[in-house]
Amino acid sequence: MIIVLKPHATKEHADALLARIAALGLRPLYMPGTERVVLGAIGDERVIDQLHLDSHPMVESVQRILAPYKLVSREMHPHDTIVPLGSVGLGGARFVVIAGPCAVESPDQMRRTAEAVRGAGAAALRGGAYKPRTSPYSFQGLGREGLEILREVARATGMPAVTEVVEVGDVETVEEYADAFQCGARNMQNFRLLKALGQSRKPVILKRGMAARLEDLLLAAEYILAEGNPNVVLCERGIQTFETATRNTLDLNAIPLIKQKSHLPVIVDPSHGTGRRELVGPMAKAAAACGADGLLIEVHCAPEEALSDGRQSLYPEQFATLMRELAPFVAAAGKSLA
Amino acid sequence: MIIVLKPHATKEHADALLARIAALGLRPLYMPGTERVVLGAIGDERVIDQLHLDSHPMVESVQRILAPYKLVSREMHPHDTIVPLGSVGLGGARFVVIAGPCAVESPDQMRRTAEAVRGAGAAALRGGAYKPRTSPYSFQGLGREGLEILREVARATGMPAVTEVVEVGDVETVEEYADAFQCGARNMQNFRLLKALGQSRKPVILKRGMAARLEDLLLAAEYILAEGNPNVVLCERGIQTFETATRNTLDLNAIPLIKQKSHLPVIVDPSHGTGRRELVGPMAKAAAACGADGLLIEVHCAPEEALSDGRQSLYPEQFATLMRELAPFVAAAGKSLA
Amino acid sequence: MIIVLKPHATKEHADALLARIAALGLRPLYMPGTERVVLGAIGDERVIDQLHLDSHPMVESVQRILAPYKLVSREMHPHDTIVPLGSVGLGGARFVVIAGPCAVESPDQMRRTAEAVRGAGAAALRGGAYKPRTSPYSFQGLGREGLEILREVARATGMPAVTEVVEVGDVETVEEYADAFQCGARNMQNFRLLKALGQSRKPVILKRGMAARLEDLLLAAEYILAEGNPNVVLCERGIQTFETATRNTLDLNAIPLIKQKSHLPVIVDPSHGTGRRELVGPMAKAAAACGADGLLIEVHCAPEEALSDGRQSLYPEQFATLMRELAPFVAAAGKSLA
Amino acid sequence: MIIVLKPHATKEHADALLARIAALGLRPLYMPGTERVVLGAIGDERVIDQLHLDSHPMVESVQRILAPYKLVSREMHPHDTIVPLGSVGLGGARFVVIAGPCAVESPDQMRRTAEAVRGAGAAALRGGAYKPRTSPYSFQGLGREGLEILREVARATGMPAVTEVVEVGDVETVEEYADAFQCGARNMQNFRLLKALGQSRKPVILKRGMAARLEDLLLAAEYILAEGNPNVVLCERGIQTFETATRNTLDLNAIPLIKQKSHLPVIVDPSHGTGRRELVGPMAKAAAACGADGLLIEVHCAPEEALSDGRQSLYPEQFATLMRELAPFVAAAGKSLA
Repeated sequence: MIIVLKPHATKEHADALLARIAALGLRPLYMPGTERVVLGAIGDERVIDQLHLDSHPMVESVQRILAPYKLVSREMHPHDTIVPLGSVGLGGARFVVIAGPCAVESPDQMRRTAEAVRGAGAAALRGGAYKPRTSPYSFQGLGREGLEILREVARATGMPAVTEVVEVGDVETVEEYADAFQCGARNMQNFRLLKALGQSRKPVILKRGMAARLEDLLLAAEYILAEGNPNVVLCERGIQTFETATRNTLDLNAIPLIKQKSHLPVIVDPSHGTGRRELVGPMAKAAAACGADGLLIEVHCAPEEALSDGRQSLYPEQFATLMRELAPFVAAAGKSLA
Repeated sequence: MIIVLKPHATKEHADALLARIAALGLRPLYMPGTERVVLGAIGDERVIDQLHLDSHPMVESVQRILAPYKLVSREMHPHDTIVPLGSVGLGGARFVVIAGPCAVESPDQMRRTAEAVRGAGAAALRGGAYKPRTSPYSFQGLGREGLEILREVARATGMPAVTEVVEVGDVETVEEYADAFQCGARNMQNFRLLKALGQSRKPVILKRGMAARLEDLLLAAEYILAEGNPNVVLCERGIQTFETATRNTLDLNAIPLIKQKSHLPVIVDPSHGTGRRELVGPMAKAAAACGADGLLIEVHCAPEEALSDGRQSLYPEQFATLMRELAPFVAAAGKSLA
Repeated sequence: MIIVLKPHATKEHADALLARIAALGLRPLYMPGTERVVLGAIGDERVIDQLHLDSHPMVESVQRILAPYKLVSREMHPHDTIVPLGSVGLGGARFVVIAGPCAVESPDQMRRTAEAVRGAGAAALRGGAYKPRTSPYSFQGLGREGLEILREVARATGMPAVTEVVEVGDVETVEEYADAFQCGARNMQNFRLLKALGQSRKPVILKRGMAARLEDLLLAAEYILAEGNPNVVLCERGIQTFETATRNTLDLNAIPLIKQKSHLPVIVDPSHGTGRRELVGPMAKAAAACGADGLLIEVHCAPEEALSDGRQSLYPEQFATLMRELAPFVAAAGKSLA
Repeated sequence: MIIVLKPHATKEHADALLARIAALGLRPLYMPGTERVVLGAIGDERVIDQLHLDSHPMVESVQRILAPYKLVSREMHPHDTIVPLGSVGLGGARFVVIAGPCAVESPDQMRRTAEAVRGAGAAALRGGAYKPRTSPYSFQGLGREGLEILREVARATGMPAVTEVVEVGDVETVEEYADAFQCGARNMQNFRLLKALGQSRKPVILKRGMAARLEDLLLAAEYILAEGNPNVVLCERGIQTFETATRNTLDLNAIPLIKQKSHLPVIVDPSHGTGRRELVGPMAKAAAACGADGLLIEVHCAPEEALSDGRQSLYPEQFATLMRELAPFVAAAGKSLA
């Protein structure tokens, strides 16, 4: 850790800070410069954090050397993690497409959609029973009834079921019905929920928050791993920017960057990442090209009747076309469709 | 609601959509233009939402005429709401300063800080027992023990106690100890928590999310009011932008804009809004000047030892100076310090 | 154009506004609703703009129906424009890679870099003689000497030369030496420069500004076309967001969106779009996958000695590897490397 | 400067880098840690920049200790700079209000507006003759004719004239007519224009770019000072964020932060900072409260007929009310209206 002192800090200030660093068993460094005194503290930065040096009135800034996360870091764990999703492995050489409607609306809607995505080559089925909606007047999901429909349709079509959990109190119920949890963008820093998901061993698809830096996303994943659940899949789904032509700005830079920093698999949600169905196909291909391990895509048997996110949902035939067109991009990226 | 059709939409498409609008009991309008056909639907837009017209493949865009919120809107409720906080009324002619440490750390720290802020003129005491922290390795708060300390110190110093609640399962406990809930930026769209807070009648200080537009904030407040709790105080605490010199960008435009759109009181948190203690004073004055109803400020008896947010916490004497300097700004804004 | 009146606007206000609309030869529409009066104006929205209706105290908001640009719009010009760059056509079925150093530094550096990129399959050579730099103490480019070096090396290696112009006064000189102008992100709204480039017939590679919405980029291109130069190539190079792990956030959503809205070719600059050489390859592939017409890539014969942007410049062997790996993605996208 | 090496960097890599640091006459520091080797380079960081260490393949990151600017820094120049604007001094104990229309439209419009703002207490007159407009179809200003009108009206009403310059080729002409240059947000990084303005001795009001960090703004000012013109006034006018309820997000944090970092005066433009006339008054007061040295405000004798920015222009009587209401805030901030 590098500690830059304010211009008017004295040698006494520096000595007092160095003594506190040494008292923690860390190696202190004194680097007087021409305009500033700089101190160093060598050792475990999580220990140094206890000193709260940035609160000190004589400290101008504190700069970390190491990443603040550990368990998710590729440095500690150089090989790619493969997360089991039903009988499929997410990560490594497979490219896994998870598809389905935004929300479970009825048995018929789920069955028709599931059969379509299964037929086109999806590896897993998505569908939300608890829907976080910006307005209290929008459809909020079918709740437990939705979970039951999802479970039954997933069983019938032979796909693992992925669904969102929004609240600690629901974790047990959702675990009973689903093969993997989805933790949504608005809950990426719901730390109590992350801890609860860390108590499970079922996979967690953790979506990046709209205002979350990649470091924040990795720290959110660290919460889950720190509780003992290693099965985390990161998901880029677009961030909030000034651009209004799309619902979000899909940050694909995140894919190769996460691959560099972490051993966890990472997938892309081009539906939320764009908000417009006509952009989903091109961005799905781009995701495959830059190294993503899979996709999370909204498909609806009749998007114009969807109770949520219809504008960004693909028609079944659009999804089938996308799966065909996707194949050579997946192959060029050195993976194969699961 | 204004519905713009795609260039290749036919008269038949338009007629079919107009029939759906009429079937809902709304007044349909047909406006053929030179380059686009535009449709209108006059009536309650929350009803029109059921049509999900933006999902239709022949619809290019849908533009609302009315705000999507209702209960929080000043149009429905022209007079300022005054929220009771202990014996103080937040809103109207009072300017209410809520001060205290980021986190409750010990009885001694709370007592010393509370006496200092009380002496300087604070109207209420803040202190967090459950701390949402970006890293799992950071101090997470004292939990129920923290609530007990806060309660006891608030009683002893005669101030109402404000504290954050982060989870539905904690609402009842926090309600027992606190005079007002704080709902943090990371939970602004934790809709289940909002609904649970709507079941209470204690005031809720609802902080704007880091990526939340003002419309999102007002819709989040609408969740609480829709459940029956009218005692909501909005709080601007800075948004996430590209600027890195400050922790957040305090968006004071929000204050007069919220005053225009809503009857709810609105306060400002210049501590999180800047992240640096030397900026807190100037921005507190600016908040008073542009019409805020109060402040939420972090003060710590010894910021350089604080377990969280020390860099943005005022020293007690800095807070006392601020309260003195603040008075003429509050007066010029036509309010008086509570 | 849709004009929403304020709640307290009267029938007289509406009539007065409708009369102004009619006086311009447009068709006025009166749509009284339950909570708001809405007016419509059908016809050329550029004419309606003259009314400045959003300035009227009784007008709450004004919503356009049509895009504010015309010449760049695909609606007016459905077929893809192909821009001639030397003997290469940029747009259509070709995928054009423009490569070279950020700045021209010396004849030797240019020659070594140009030979390397030519050998690896680049279609055109880039190199800046006038460098816009954030700090006045950074290297500002060689000026005319740099143009001469670029011209000579481009001739010797048989590639068209692309270089940035930063100032109206330089347009003539740059035109003399270069085969195509580059207009940088910081100058995207330097409208005088855009007009001057519109007087030329040489191609202009117009880079998106860091804070520019796609509509702003298309309007900037409209400036050039409106002056008579149809040879504009748009370039996505990343926007300014809160993410700090990368220099910019490359917004690839822009590619399919621009393709939908405009007939102009669009290329991607993954060097500035990421700021880190290890991310350039994956994002170059993603750009090809989502439909870009080419790439602008920084390559330097010795990046660790580069006078600018070394961190994001590829080593020659990295560029050669990228070109090999890129081929199947370009082919899968239905294009061929120029 | 602190240089963090990659995990696999060897002692040889470190030694080679240290030798390069020493060869420049700087003091090298070697700090081997448990997980990373860190190097230091003590001395003038503008010299160290020549090494381009961030381009080195074994370097993970480079962190500056000192600010990259020098002449604008308060460290070098602790006392507030006072910039002469006509007979008024901008900076120090005065609070200077510059008011007038967005664009000069006609002699009558300028005269009526100038008399109104003069009567209400404005210290200087603004009005644009060259208007940078997003669309080529919008009014672009009267050019030299506009400068003549502005000059004549300013003379007649006894106020200094402030007007925007957008192009190097216009600097001489504008200098002839105006008492101060305005350099607009879109030109903040038009470095050639900054250099040309640095050759003048007339004051330059430098507006922050929409995507500019404060460090970028200070570096832009450094360009002007480095050319010899010390008369720079910084201007916060809002930045580009995701919020769409206002035209820009006015970043008032910038005011106390700039005051800390720089000796230059700083003013606020609440017209562009909000984009809505009803928010201008509150934000003008907030600007005064947090320490700004003045305001730049758009006032038009008939905003509903303004050719640009009418929505954010005050009516003369609104401006007069604002000036009256502003006075106690200015006084509370320890300044007096110029």
